[in-house]
Amino acid sequence: MKFCTSCGNSVVLQIPAGDDRERFVCISCELIHYTNPRIIVGCVPVYEGKVLLCKRAIEPRKNYWTLPAGFMENGETTPEGAARETWEEARGRVSNLELYRIFDVPSISQVYMFYRCDLDGGQFGVGPESLESGLYSQDEIPWDEIAFPVVYQTLKQYFIDAQTGHFPVQVATVERRPRRP
Amino acid sequence: MKFCTSCGNSVVLQIPAGDDRERFVCISCELIHYTNPRIIVGCVPVYEGKVLLCKRAIEPRKNYWTLPAGFMENGETTPEGAARETWEEARGRVSNLELYRIFDVPSISQVYMFYRCDLDGGQFGVGPESLESGLYSQDEIPWDEIAFPVVYQTLKQYFIDAQTGHFPVQVATVERRPRRP
Repeated sequence: MKFCTSCGNSVVLQIPAGDDRERFVCISCELIHYTNPRIIVGCVPVYEGKVLLCKRAIEPRKNYWTLPAGFMENGETTPEGAARETWEEARGRVSNLELYRIFDVPSISQVYMFYRCDLDGGQFGVGPESLESGLYSQDEIPWDEIAFPVVYQTLKQYFIDAQTGHFPVQVATVERRPRRP
Repeated sequence: MKFCTSCGNSVVLQIPAGDDRERFVCISCELIHYTNPRIIVGCVPVYEGKVLLCKRAIEPRKNYWTLPAGFMENGETTPEGAARETWEEARGRVSNLELYRIFDVPSISQVYMFYRCDLDGGQFGVGPESLESGLYSQDEIPWDEIAFPVVYQTLKQYFIDAQTGHFPVQVATVERRPRRP
């Protein structure tokens, strides 16, 4: 960040009065620009015991498989965002969304929220950000070609929990690099 | 938003190619500026059946009572942020954090995440954003002077769940104005 969003003058990194960390502050109008973690919302869409996966058509991790997920947008709820992403990436409609897994990824200031849900009618397609999509049983999932650790962990846990039918909400941290001491 | 954060030229609202909603796009360098919902993390700090509340020293809702909570910062996890806010606002250290309530507030693009936790040693103080703080039983809570609906709902549910000792994670939406159809 180099310029103020309000007046267009330069910003500098400094600790504002009463604050305890550096922010981008405008040298002219003194506007403080806050940046905060972003939320990625996604689904675990299930039909007859199989999970809907998409093969990514875009970087990062092009050609690898993922659960439908993406950045939450302003003006929507987390389940609305998760359902929207499932439509955009896999042309699937979902219902009965239940919060399932949350992942903190502090190294990149992201929080993932995955909802379990029913894939209505078992119907799906291929959205513009996907190369293909499909319903996979535990044995059929391409475990060596999963795009992201949060997706791998969510799928692994899902099939463990599916054996008991009990799906507790869990929060976990994914470390992408050594944390600050 | 009026100016590009990267080059300082003007931005306009337009729908970028391949997108489906308006973003602020720079007329010069074409940088797309995304804005996304923000996360508020907070705690329900408990000691001997009582909950730690703070009276707000700042707007909005100055002089009303709240659970310690605030904007999640980059580089931290959601429980780390919730614990940090409890220190900043009420000088309390907490442990055994368990995710409890999530609230979507789409009208202002916020997501609240509250963690139940133990208030270590029952000790607390008053941070710079608070006028006072204290431990309150259900009967002692100033129910008519609670700052925010999400805090009121979290406290109400906490004392209901405390009767059984079973604290399921729940997601709810708080509507601040009529939603778009």
